[in-house]
Amino acid sequence: MVTSHSEAAARPPMASLRRRGPVLERAILDAALEQLSTVGWNGLTMEGVAAGAQTGKAAVYRRWPSKEDLVVDALQAALPPLAEAPDFGSVREDLYQLCRRLRDAMFSKPGCALRSVLHECDAHAAERFQSVILKGVIQPSTALFREVVDRGIGRGDVRTDATDALTLEVIPAMMMYRSKVCGSEWPDGEIAEMIDRVAVPLFRSTGS
Amino acid sequence: MVTSHSEAAARPPMASLRRRGPVLERAILDAALEQLSTVGWNGLTMEGVAAGAQTGKAAVYRRWPSKEDLVVDALQAALPPLAEAPDFGSVREDLYQLCRRLRDAMFSKPGCALRSVLHECDAHAAERFQSVILKGVIQPSTALFREVVDRGIGRGDVRTDATDALTLEVIPAMMMYRSKVCGSEWPDGEIAEMIDRVAVPLFRSTGS
Repeated sequence: MVTSHSEAAARPPMASLRRRGPVLERAILDAALEQLSTVGWNGLTMEGVAAGAQTGKAAVYRRWPSKEDLVVDALQAALPPLAEAPDFGSVREDLYQLCRRLRDAMFSKPGCALRSVLHECDAHAAERFQSVILKGVIQPSTALFREVVDRGIGRGDVRTDATDALTLEVIPAMMMYRSKVCGSEWPDGEIAEMIDRVAVPLFRSTGS
Repeated sequence: MVTSHSEAAARPPMASLRRRGPVLERAILDAALEQLSTVGWNGLTMEGVAAGAQTGKAAVYRRWPSKEDLVVDALQAALPPLAEAPDFGSVREDLYQLCRRLRDAMFSKPGCALRSVLHECDAHAAERFQSVILKGVIQPSTALFREVVDRGIGRGDVRTDATDALTLEVIPAMMMYRSKVCGSEWPDGEIAEMIDRVAVPLFRSTGS
């Protein structure tokens, strides 16, 4: 195609169309998530991700030496943050709202992608992905549960010895257990029941 | 080889050396467990199991159409039974002893074999093996926890509304959670801590 010099000058040079740094990385991570949801772990390839991000394979490999590395980062980056500890004025309500957020993270698109990847991948990759769940969802939630419980102790609603590691694990353990063993997706009503039947008796001060 | 008729008559006929029914099946299941502990799920073959049981491949396939079927039965048959609910006179002690038995089952040789098989196998087989854990270890334990809790209610030590499904899941959930997330093998001291910090506050009657 013949174009005049002035038309060529009007178009930005090719080089400035190249995405760099965080923008390109974001595109690659998004493409990886897209691939995960369409073809799954087994179907995902570095070439497919590169194509989805409209970039070359080299740009992907330069930053992520392996499929595992790429998917770990993609999932980590996509997991919804748990934000701050809810403060609705009562421990029961705060725990309820916090569990709903934990449920939302577990069953978010990346949360579900994470769980289905765990089904498909080998043991080594599975360990790395379990670690994403632990560091990205569970540990942050434990810190927030602790904050809610401390506030409840301050109000006199929660027994003072309720901040040990085991007690703070009960709720995450229940949520992981029922989701794994019963396939529960923890609808609001089930969360409410767990808070009322388990968390309230477990945490309440013996008041005297 | 030429033998006299009387020598031949003195030897038992070949047919009676063949093991039948339960004896042969036991030998095959034992050989499957042996293979699992030496070469794992991936290394286990029907031929290898048959050889280990000193029988032919056909005898194995006749009863177990697939590797999955065979390993499910072998693990199920080998898991130690939880026996009856302990009765040591106090809910705290009963729960403690019951958890120790649950721990012993989870970390028995077949329990560990089960968990390592879960790492190696595909998603379909994994679902079947998870089911072995559920039906062979967890559900029986829930029934025993219920018995202990009922006895505690009878003594006035446990609150009357503590027999709902969620409350009874807390201990199995904690044991599965810590073993999975922290790699804990639940030594006696950790079980005692869980009973004292979590189970006692959770179950105790509010007494008035």
